Amino acid sequence: MAEAFVIPLWADLLAVGIGALQGALFAAQFRDRRLDWLGVAIIGIVVGFGGGLLRDLLLDVPLAPLQTNWYVVVATGAALLGMLLERVFSRLGRLITALDALTIGLFGAIGTTKALALGIPEVAAVFVGVLAAVGGSILRDMLLTLPIALMHVGSLYAVAAAAGSGAIAVLLSLGVPVLVAATIGVVVTFAVRVASVLFGWSLPEQRSIGRL
Amino acid sequence: MAEAFVIPLWADLLAVGIGALQGALFAAQFRDRRLDWLGVAIIGIVVGFGGGLLRDLLLDVPLAPLQTNWYVVVATGAALLGMLLERVFSRLGRLITALDALTIGLFGAIGTTKALALGIPEVAAVFVGVLAAVGGSILRDMLLTLPIALMHVGSLYAVAAAAGSGAIAVLLSLGVPVLVAATIGVVVTFAVRVASVLFGWSLPEQRSIGRL
Amino acid sequence: MAEAFVIPLWADLLAVGIGALQGALFAAQFRDRRLDWLGVAIIGIVVGFGGGLLRDLLLDVPLAPLQTNWYVVVATGAALLGMLLERVFSRLGRLITALDALTIGLFGAIGTTKALALGIPEVAAVFVGVLAAVGGSILRDMLLTLPIALMHVGSLYAVAAAAGSGAIAVLLSLGVPVLVAATIGVVVTFAVRVASVLFGWSLPEQRSIGRL
Repeated sequence: MAEAFVIPLWADLLAVGIGALQGALFAAQFRDRRLDWLGVAIIGIVVGFGGGLLRDLLLDVPLAPLQTNWYVVVATGAALLGMLLERVFSRLGRLITALDALTIGLFGAIGTTKALALGIPEVAAVFVGVLAAVGGSILRDMLLTLPIALMHVGSLYAVAAAAGSGAIAVLLSLGVPVLVAATIGVVVTFAVRVASVLFGWSLPEQRSIGRL
Repeated sequence: MAEAFVIPLWADLLAVGIGALQGALFAAQFRDRRLDWLGVAIIGIVVGFGGGLLRDLLLDVPLAPLQTNWYVVVATGAALLGMLLERVFSRLGRLITALDALTIGLFGAIGTTKALALGIPEVAAVFVGVLAAVGGSILRDMLLTLPIALMHVGSLYAVAAAAGSGAIAVLLSLGVPVLVAATIGVVVTFAVRVASVLFGWSLPEQRSIGRL
Repeated sequence: MAEAFVIPLWADLLAVGIGALQGALFAAQFRDRRLDWLGVAIIGIVVGFGGGLLRDLLLDVPLAPLQTNWYVVVATGAALLGMLLERVFSRLGRLITALDALTIGLFGAIGTTKALALGIPEVAAVFVGVLAAVGGSILRDMLLTLPIALMHVGSLYAVAAAAGSGAIAVLLSLGVPVLVAATIGVVVTFAVRVASVLFGWSLPEQRSIGRL
């Protein structure tokens, strides 16, 4: 059984803050909907640590983001900062896409290794890792009553998380130390995500085989 | 560590019934959608004890509303009663708003103190308390594919719950007995909620700082 | 306290596969939405074992569909197969409706008896059983931002699951052995569901009593 890959609290909170800030920037597209400050904070919370809550619910363990005050505080603060300084941050689109790619890589690595450490088998652990990485974005779209972006043709997001989480599961089963495996997983997720945005990669649309 | 604030089962069920009845009255606005009796019962269940289910899921404890038959029975019965007698109850709008304000106060107080009693720190406990109070209303809007009302500009609802839950966390940390703290919390939530409806208080709409 | 009704893993996976395949056929109606292969796989997963995840979350036990790799593999595979061979399967509409009726019967029986075996009282156990049976279909509609089909006037679906689950709870309380009770429950659900489709049975639309 593998060890879990853990990162220092400050690094996890930084990732949560980046997610929450990005959630607020996303919400800013919907000015006509009259979201209030609480709505923005809720979006920040679900994008920031919604994936972590889903991960721990699936694993039937105490929910890590509720064991300290920091997650709620950081996610709320980052979301409101993102809302107020939206004009500044929206100029940094590329930087934020890159940071977000790093964030889903980290959340995926933490989720996958935590699941494996609890005895969840490989494929199911990758499923947990992917949901830890992108679950916040699913909840965001559900709360905004939008089509779930990652289910539709577009740049690779959940696939990037799956590639990284899958790499980790394979490497750990080959006996690679968890820190090395997790680092490679984060790099794989980051690379697939960024390449997909740069080169316009996407999955094919649903289709049936024509002649049957 | 604080004790949890508990209320007698009949009082909790009364609050669940009020929530479920209100859910049915809310659903009655959507006559054109062809909701059936089961749809109304589901709305009653999620408004009545959906918040309690979310609270216990977040706290990773057995789900209290499933440990007795009463919650399902009362929520279903109250929802169908609300549906059938909608013309009567819709004349009692003010009374029902007041009872609902009491209900979210109670659910918030129960949720916050239960979280604190389980060792969840203050800010996270307030988060749990607020979700216990208003989570049912979020689930209601999601199941009806409506914009989540409490994320948009309108009278204060989650904020009222947060004010009461926050007051409880502060009072308990000052050593105030749980019964006193919880009572004050319920009064605060009730007062903020009712005042917000009477005086049209609301949170500001999302906005960014103009000149940067 | 009753024993839980368990079925062999292969039978459970077959039921999951039927659910996932049907989810993909359902998604195929929405060609204009540009769902990609991942979107179809997600729909397959939630219809296939979303109900099982909800059941175990409500029961606060480790999530059975994540304790082996097979659930994720079978649901994903069946969904993609359903998507690719949609023209074949869509000719088998009646067979698939019948298999699905069997599937919700099985999921309801497993859910209800598992809840009872964990000490959940009867009515709450039926609630868990129904959600185990139809929860995947609720999640499917939420993820596709559609009105929740089973809350609206139409053929009986959740009611069929409730009839079977209710029958099981009654029979077990009369001392009937779990295998017999579960078999009767599956037959009841199957019969109500199929009869409702054949004869156009439905629940009444929401309405209030006119003269009050």
